[in-house]
Amino acid sequence: MKAQPSAEYELYYWPSIQGRGELIRLAFEAAGVAYLDVARSPEAKGGGAKAIRAMLEPDGAGEGPPPFAPPILKHGPLVLAQTANILFYLGPRLGLVPDDEPSRLRANQVQLTIADFISEAHDTHHPIASGLYYDEQKPESLRRSEQFLAHRAPKFLGCFERVLEHNSAAAGQHAIGPALSYVDLSLFQAVSGMRYAFPVAMARLEKKTPLLVALHDRVAALPRVAAYLGSPRRIPFNEHGLFRHYPELDK
Amino acid sequence: MKAQPSAEYELYYWPSIQGRGELIRLAFEAAGVAYLDVARSPEAKGGGAKAIRAMLEPDGAGEGPPPFAPPILKHGPLVLAQTANILFYLGPRLGLVPDDEPSRLRANQVQLTIADFISEAHDTHHPIASGLYYDEQKPESLRRSEQFLAHRAPKFLGCFERVLEHNSAAAGQHAIGPALSYVDLSLFQAVSGMRYAFPVAMARLEKKTPLLVALHDRVAALPRVAAYLGSPRRIPFNEHGLFRHYPELDK
Repeated sequence: MKAQPSAEYELYYWPSIQGRGELIRLAFEAAGVAYLDVARSPEAKGGGAKAIRAMLEPDGAGEGPPPFAPPILKHGPLVLAQTANILFYLGPRLGLVPDDEPSRLRANQVQLTIADFISEAHDTHHPIASGLYYDEQKPESLRRSEQFLAHRAPKFLGCFERVLEHNSAAAGQHAIGPALSYVDLSLFQAVSGMRYAFPVAMARLEKKTPLLVALHDRVAALPRVAAYLGSPRRIPFNEHGLFRHYPELDK
Repeated sequence: MKAQPSAEYELYYWPSIQGRGELIRLAFEAAGVAYLDVARSPEAKGGGAKAIRAMLEPDGAGEGPPPFAPPILKHGPLVLAQTANILFYLGPRLGLVPDDEPSRLRANQVQLTIADFISEAHDTHHPIASGLYYDEQKPESLRRSEQFLAHRAPKFLGCFERVLEHNSAAAGQHAIGPALSYVDLSLFQAVSGMRYAFPVAMARLEKKTPLLVALHDRVAALPRVAAYLGSPRRIPFNEHGLFRHYPELDK
């Protein structure tokens, strides 16, 4: 779905990376619902990083609390930050979560676990500070990556595998309920990111998570998702985002 | 409120630390609602770490997805993990958040930002791996703490200060809406933890966040919270939890 100036949903996120914003882009794209990816328009047209900075001002969120960081969603008068929070709001509106309270809470539980996982994946290349360059924290990155790949990644991926196994409503096909949810889309992104960042380790790790790999492949093949992934709207992975490929970290 | 075997709410969290579970304990205590802090009973009586491990089994959460880690809440057939998710569920039930959807989402936004902050505070003493001892990552901890105290802590605390400033319904008195919410309780805990872990740096940092400090003091003085803090139910801060006092990290 092409971003349209008339879209009722506005996403504010860095225009040059997938990052956490990608979990929200994927939801809109998979649902086929129009959204404006505001910062990808030029500054002269109200876009760019300038548009994000305006949302971070004390009054940028209108009545809502000032956001700490993007992604930020604007929908009418409502301005929301925090990826999992935005997806919690969008889920029922995009038809990407069952409507009952227990299902929504369960989706949120897994989504927050994905958030923890991608934060730890990020910290493999920024273990000391997000404000320093990778080159300024390389020995620490080597140590952290080794630990992450040996202990944390298998634990998180194993948990996601069990979530798929356990969802009796969909017998390994979906994380929550009987159909595609935003959690499935975020699991797709987590696997994609891990494959980009750690191709060697991930080839080994994913042998133990066949349901997760199958989910990744099914999501990638969904017509709207496939169209998105093949379009210029999908920003390629790169070494400015959450998942970065530094071969020396991939053992 | 004393934990009672008949309580309808069961909290599963490590019995020897405040950690993330404390944000949930504080909500029950401030609301005056009975809860069973399951793992603080002896193993022979169904408590201890054994009770937590049982919840982490593939079928431990009943119909819900297997949790990644505690805290875990059991309420009737519903089993939920992830601190912010548990508080989202409990908020309206404990009278600790306004009932309308925008307020609940705004509370969740700030709560998730608090979660990010306390994760970063934790990583000051575990920048390489949560599975290694502090002594095995001390040089890295020194570097990370310096960056955290110089850049991240002021940014987070400044954001919380602006949240209080901006909430026109309570003019600096509360984070969300016109009355006490679980977000206020978690902000209290964040300030308490920072004061414990980094007394030197925090004395400097909190000069710039007078509303946050005033909120901390008001929360601490609430009769139910004060009674809790003075009781043996409040586990003291220690060097096994999220917030740890290592003087060498506190510059």
